[in-house]
Amino acid sequence: MKKIFVVNGPNLDMLGKREPQIYGKTTLADIKKICEEAAKAKGYELVFSQYNGEGEIIDELHRAYTDAAAVVLNAGAYTHYSYAIADAVKMLPCPTVELHISNVFARESFRHESVLSPYCTALIAGLGANGYAHAVTAAIELIRD
Amino acid sequence: MKKIFVVNGPNLDMLGKREPQIYGKTTLADIKKICEEAAKAKGYELVFSQYNGEGEIIDELHRAYTDAAAVVLNAGAYTHYSYAIADAVKMLPCPTVELHISNVFARESFRHESVLSPYCTALIAGLGANGYAHAVTAAIELIRD
Amino acid sequence: MKKIFVVNGPNLDMLGKREPQIYGKTTLADIKKICEEAAKAKGYELVFSQYNGEGEIIDELHRAYTDAAAVVLNAGAYTHYSYAIADAVKMLPCPTVELHISNVFARESFRHESVLSPYCTALIAGLGANGYAHAVTAAIELIRD
Amino acid sequence: MKKIFVVNGPNLDMLGKREPQIYGKTTLADIKKICEEAAKAKGYELVFSQYNGEGEIIDELHRAYTDAAAVVLNAGAYTHYSYAIADAVKMLPCPTVELHISNVFARESFRHESVLSPYCTALIAGLGANGYAHAVTAAIELIRD
Amino acid sequence: MKKIFVVNGPNLDMLGKREPQIYGKTTLADIKKICEEAAKAKGYELVFSQYNGEGEIIDELHRAYTDAAAVVLNAGAYTHYSYAIADAVKMLPCPTVELHISNVFARESFRHESVLSPYCTALIAGLGANGYAHAVTAAIELIRD
Amino acid sequence: MKKIFVVNGPNLDMLGKREPQIYGKTTLADIKKICEEAAKAKGYELVFSQYNGEGEIIDELHRAYTDAAAVVLNAGAYTHYSYAIADAVKMLPCPTVELHISNVFARESFRHESVLSPYCTALIAGLGANGYAHAVTAAIELIRD
Amino acid sequence: MKKIFVVNGPNLDMLGKREPQIYGKTTLADIKKICEEAAKAKGYELVFSQYNGEGEIIDELHRAYTDAAAVVLNAGAYTHYSYAIADAVKMLPCPTVELHISNVFARESFRHESVLSPYCTALIAGLGANGYAHAVTAAIELIRD
Amino acid sequence: MKKIFVVNGPNLDMLGKREPQIYGKTTLADIKKICEEAAKAKGYELVFSQYNGEGEIIDELHRAYTDAAAVVLNAGAYTHYSYAIADAVKMLPCPTVELHISNVFARESFRHESVLSPYCTALIAGLGANGYAHAVTAAIELIRD
Amino acid sequence: MKKIFVVNGPNLDMLGKREPQIYGKTTLADIKKICEEAAKAKGYELVFSQYNGEGEIIDELHRAYTDAAAVVLNAGAYTHYSYAIADAVKMLPCPTVELHISNVFARESFRHESVLSPYCTALIAGLGANGYAHAVTAAIELIRD
Amino acid sequence: MKKIFVVNGPNLDMLGKREPQIYGKTTLADIKKICEEAAKAKGYELVFSQYNGEGEIIDELHRAYTDAAAVVLNAGAYTHYSYAIADAVKMLPCPTVELHISNVFARESFRHESVLSPYCTALIAGLGANGYAHAVTAAIELIRD
Amino acid sequence: MKKIFVVNGPNLDMLGKREPQIYGKTTLADIKKICEEAAKAKGYELVFSQYNGEGEIIDELHRAYTDAAAVVLNAGAYTHYSYAIADAVKMLPCPTVELHISNVFARESFRHESVLSPYCTALIAGLGANGYAHAVTAAIELIRD
Amino acid sequence: MKKIFVVNGPNLDMLGKREPQIYGKTTLADIKKICEEAAKAKGYELVFSQYNGEGEIIDELHRAYTDAAAVVLNAGAYTHYSYAIADAVKMLPCPTVELHISNVFARESFRHESVLSPYCTALIAGLGANGYAHAVTAAIELIRD
Repeated sequence: MKKIFVVNGPNLDMLGKREPQIYGKTTLADIKKICEEAAKAKGYELVFSQYNGEGEIIDELHRAYTDAAAVVLNAGAYTHYSYAIADAVKMLPCPTVELHISNVFARESFRHESVLSPYCTALIAGLGANGYAHAVTAAIELIRD
Repeated sequence: MKKIFVVNGPNLDMLGKREPQIYGKTTLADIKKICEEAAKAKGYELVFSQYNGEGEIIDELHRAYTDAAAVVLNAGAYTHYSYAIADAVKMLPCPTVELHISNVFARESFRHESVLSPYCTALIAGLGANGYAHAVTAAIELIRD
Repeated sequence: MKKIFVVNGPNLDMLGKREPQIYGKTTLADIKKICEEAAKAKGYELVFSQYNGEGEIIDELHRAYTDAAAVVLNAGAYTHYSYAIADAVKMLPCPTVELHISNVFARESFRHESVLSPYCTALIAGLGANGYAHAVTAAIELIRD
Repeated sequence: MKKIFVVNGPNLDMLGKREPQIYGKTTLADIKKICEEAAKAKGYELVFSQYNGEGEIIDELHRAYTDAAAVVLNAGAYTHYSYAIADAVKMLPCPTVELHISNVFARESFRHESVLSPYCTALIAGLGANGYAHAVTAAIELIRD
Repeated sequence: MKKIFVVNGPNLDMLGKREPQIYGKTTLADIKKICEEAAKAKGYELVFSQYNGEGEIIDELHRAYTDAAAVVLNAGAYTHYSYAIADAVKMLPCPTVELHISNVFARESFRHESVLSPYCTALIAGLGANGYAHAVTAAIELIRD
Repeated sequence: MKKIFVVNGPNLDMLGKREPQIYGKTTLADIKKICEEAAKAKGYELVFSQYNGEGEIIDELHRAYTDAAAVVLNAGAYTHYSYAIADAVKMLPCPTVELHISNVFARESFRHESVLSPYCTALIAGLGANGYAHAVTAAIELIRD
Repeated sequence: MKKIFVVNGPNLDMLGKREPQIYGKTTLADIKKICEEAAKAKGYELVFSQYNGEGEIIDELHRAYTDAAAVVLNAGAYTHYSYAIADAVKMLPCPTVELHISNVFARESFRHESVLSPYCTALIAGLGANGYAHAVTAAIELIRD
Repeated sequence: MKKIFVVNGPNLDMLGKREPQIYGKTTLADIKKICEEAAKAKGYELVFSQYNGEGEIIDELHRAYTDAAAVVLNAGAYTHYSYAIADAVKMLPCPTVELHISNVFARESFRHESVLSPYCTALIAGLGANGYAHAVTAAIELIRD
Repeated sequence: MKKIFVVNGPNLDMLGKREPQIYGKTTLADIKKICEEAAKAKGYELVFSQYNGEGEIIDELHRAYTDAAAVVLNAGAYTHYSYAIADAVKMLPCPTVELHISNVFARESFRHESVLSPYCTALIAGLGANGYAHAVTAAIELIRD
Repeated sequence: MKKIFVVNGPNLDMLGKREPQIYGKTTLADIKKICEEAAKAKGYELVFSQYNGEGEIIDELHRAYTDAAAVVLNAGAYTHYSYAIADAVKMLPCPTVELHISNVFARESFRHESVLSPYCTALIAGLGANGYAHAVTAAIELIRD
Repeated sequence: MKKIFVVNGPNLDMLGKREPQIYGKTTLADIKKICEEAAKAKGYELVFSQYNGEGEIIDELHRAYTDAAAVVLNAGAYTHYSYAIADAVKMLPCPTVELHISNVFARESFRHESVLSPYCTALIAGLGANGYAHAVTAAIELIRD
Repeated sequence: MKKIFVVNGPNLDMLGKREPQIYGKTTLADIKKICEEAAKAKGYELVFSQYNGEGEIIDELHRAYTDAAAVVLNAGAYTHYSYAIADAVKMLPCPTVELHISNVFARESFRHESVLSPYCTALIAGLGANGYAHAVTAAIELIRD
């Protein structure tokens, strides 16, 4: 098992267009590159995806169940209510890093709770696109533990 | 940009069959015609859709992001918990009218909150199928503002 | 019975002066004209009023009980706590359209609940002064149902 | 001091018209007679009133402050939120019987709390128009204590 | 069916000893007499009981199910949490008057809710021992309705 | 240990009389037969009981503690607040099936929570009298596990 | 604009009679004098009023909208629920000092929240009749800012 | 109409891999067989499905609307928040049995509420894979009612 | 009055059998001895009882009302919801020590509130069977105060 | 006893640097002068202090217990959760004025509750640095009462 | 390890002065003697301390971590919100007895929750100064276990 | 400004001793080294501190106000209730990274809310001692932004 899965949720395909004052101008393609470099630097292959549908994210996490050494998950707004994704995370046998581009805890109150956090190993928020590099690196370090 | 998007959510394909005492006997096909007439009368083209899946509604709203002059959204039960759709609405640069066929605020208590409302321009509820005509017309008037 | 009652609540006499970024520059006199045109176009007479007092609004709704074919009610802040007005609405035998100039559901949280909604036929919010025209027309359409 | 005040709140002027399945066909004029008989039987004079306005009910209770030997108060929907009336009740030096025609505790949930009860001597609910006779009699018995 | 059941709940056997500043000096024996007189005056026989156990009160209400023309129930503290007694009240085919000696709504907050009220016909509180006379009389009047 | 305990709580002795639109016309005697057949079919003896008192149900569960191979418990309204019965269930060393005749989760809101569920093995609700047969059979199957 | 409005709400006409252990023996006439002296000392004219009705207080605040240099508002119990008065305060272009004679935050819990505070400039509570002098003086100092 | 629909929700495709201490080692293929036997024994055909996506489950329930004699629904984590699925269940004209493999009411607190229950006929939980046999049989018995 | 009442509630007859990891192996008979020694050492007679029924505990507390110099009460799970027992405790003229064998505040959340505490003199929890010795001694010391 | 204590809490040493749009440019040294003048004008000596630590504020209030004729307390953010400071305030035998520079009730919601208010004599908020002068003067006036 | 730590929190240095109707006239010096006698009687040395600062109590508990055989902790008002002290208690390897002089559960509602209790072994409240003797003795008995 | 402040809160001096299954065996001295290396690698000087007292952490943050280019803050349990520290963080003009060694959101519920997060730039949790390296590096990257 030498693959790192980076799974992105709803509306993240709009990165760079959407509310740049919060998310910056970086696009998802830029972020994919950041992740690939971070993974490659540690000798891992990257599997990068984005879905707007809850069911498709669960499908991807099921693939990660068998193929991933570690998972980085930015579930977008599903973070705050998708117990179905939480169940899929819960069954992952590998370390999982929950990622948010902005500091969600400083925004609207519905973003202050994550139903995924209890089942993730670690959490990184507020570091912008750069957070993906930290998340991939940290996820790999957690494998070594 | 001369298109009006009317986006319908889960179970609205069953209109006419489902609980007619609440929703009336009008079908979604009837409603499409009502919308087309209302749009045509103001010189706009109509893009009409219905999806049961949350991800597909988000996909449609992303298309509206680039193509729509205004959006009318009846998100069905997703209205009450889909923060993912709310995020997609929030990034729309055009006016958005939230629509409900019945007066949702007079029904079960979980229907009293809309997580979409804070990001919509206006709200129309309880006018039956006729509400679509008002919503399309009102959405176009909001463009002019 | 050929009269449409449009009843306005507290502080709406200040329209045009008060917080124009929320309510626009239209005055209540302008709105009265909008309503009269909408009613006349459908062959109805208009009864238009504004009161700051809760008791006086109830008195007006009691007059509507016997004289109105339909009611449009913008109860201002009473919308959010006046169960006494709600009781008066509840006993109305004719259709009642609850109206708000701004999208109250996108403002302070105390404005997210309406104690009147469960007893109204329909709800229109966020269309500005123009919402009155839609409300009067829609109320008349509801009579025909 | 030989007067019994019976004070009625909003919408009670509609008794007999309004929702007869809940309130019965008795009118407020009928109820006034019932009260007068009950008071007269015990040797007391009756002061009977009805107001839709919160301020006017407070004015009446201030008159009761100096003139009443006992008060019967059916404050209608104000029962559930008027702390201003509650303050007026609180300062009454004489016994006060809170009255409801229907069993408010078996109806909509907002009717389950009375902000007046903590300041009333007693409470009678659910006995229909007949409850007024009991309330007047009981109020007079409380004077004797 | 010519019997009126008056059912008393926990700790009411201590009346006269217990907290006389709240409940007065009247004993349960005194109250039985008050009830018998009130019933006899209307031509009814009285069945008077007191139990500390929840199950025994339910047993008594089951007897009332077949034998009672009306029930007066002072369930003491069970009023506030015994859904089992509420179920027994709910199935009674005859009028039921909930009674409290003191104005429970003016005391500790746990006494502000009654789980029995939704299933009772009427409620009398705060009239002291005298409330029993009113309750028995009112219950009989409700039979006549 | 070859005995199956079926323990019934408050008001279930009234089955057949009480609210037949919810509970049907079957009596508790009919249900006892259904249970005996279901138990006999699997080679078990039945111990069937009904009590209105909380303490007596606890006593019965203590007998089940030493004598029962499995328990089926319909605790009636005690389901929703009796932590004392919950404690008695918690200490049972055998499988316990919580049973409700109607779908309690579709009725009044106080019936939506069961304080017993956390300590029961399984739950069956909404199958009417027939649910007892399923519960007894299922309880026996759970013994085999 | 050289006028200071001091607006008093429900039941304050009873000052001196009502619960003197909380409000003291000073009457509203005494308070008017205190205010007049405080205003005159700073070169301002006083407009002093008291109303029991919510609508009349709103009317007065609308007059203050055009005529007042500063407002002192003791809204009595309306403080805790009148969003209609809050709306009228919100639109005032001049400084507004919320005043309470007693320390409302040390009394019944419903008095711990003020729906007016978010729209007032400052708050003074618990200084007795003397608080009016501080409030008038402070309101005038806020004009100077 | 002779078909029984068994609809499974998110993550149930992982049965046998996922948390076997809670869900056991049985796979979804095993469960399909259990259901087919139970249906065949009663003379019904089985339609068995599993989806991770909310929209696809709604699509399946719409097919059940026209084709199913009864439905067994294990909606996984959607049970706890999908009002869209609840709406689809609500319109089903046939009996619906809600099923959970484990006793969800004894697990994490977010699993204690089911938004589907109010619209289902019956509920079975905690019987493991065996629960499917009970659910299919019970659903068929409910048809006969 | 020279008697100390030690009253035990539901399920405490199972001590030694039930969940020994929480309650230890000591039986209720052992505890009775501990209490008798503690009482005798201070010159008091012991009255020791255990009941599963709420009504019977109330009966015992009524006996304590006349006979006890002090009461030690371990009401088991009734501690958390029996307002009827709370009322019986409230009327006791002697000191009352609430006792729990385990530290209830460190267990399930429903055990964190005691409805009896407001009416007890003191509280001891978490000292195991030994807590009874402390409670009896402390209760006697409180008499002396 | 001729000393007035003015006690300042956490972060107030940063006044003038910190968020000047909320707190103004005045420094704590400026405020000390304002207080000294106000105290001197009434013939009192001033004891002025500022601490970031909760324990040190309590120590200071204990000194005030023996030395202060009146206390003015701006406890900063401790206002909203320090029950330990509240206890220290509660035992003060002299008048205590709670002070806030800004109108805390118009800011973040956690600032809407003060745990100190129930134990303070009076409250002044929103008058800026000038509020200290009012608070010192008012505190001295309260001594005279 | 032969030392017993008795740690006292904020305001306990004021014992004897502060609200004697709640805490009695005993001073902290008296209590130290009571504790020393109780410890000595069992062959233990006493380490007695009092701090108003949260950090200093944590420091003391860190010393107890290495030196104490058992701890008695009266954390005063910190009991109700100091999760930092709770963390320090949680890591103690020895038995810890939480102590309160008064019955905190019968006082203001904020005193009804202890954030320390989940991490303490036992709890004693309401025995006055005498409670310290019980607490020290009980703590030593818990060591023996 | 070339200094990075790493500020540690209560109980972190016990790292390595305390609950190693949650926090690991690394001591605070080890962590200091990790931070120094991370800072030095980016050309920054490190200021590393730990305090158990809330006031001392505020003092340190005030020093950071003038001296720090970025701050890393692990406030321990103060994270969950210290609005005083939150105020000190809020006024920091430099980026602030909130750090937790464990995934606090997967532990006790009181650890699910951080009152500091709304005022921090970013958040890292669950990466163990290694999280400090990420936090220092990320904080420096945020300076560059």
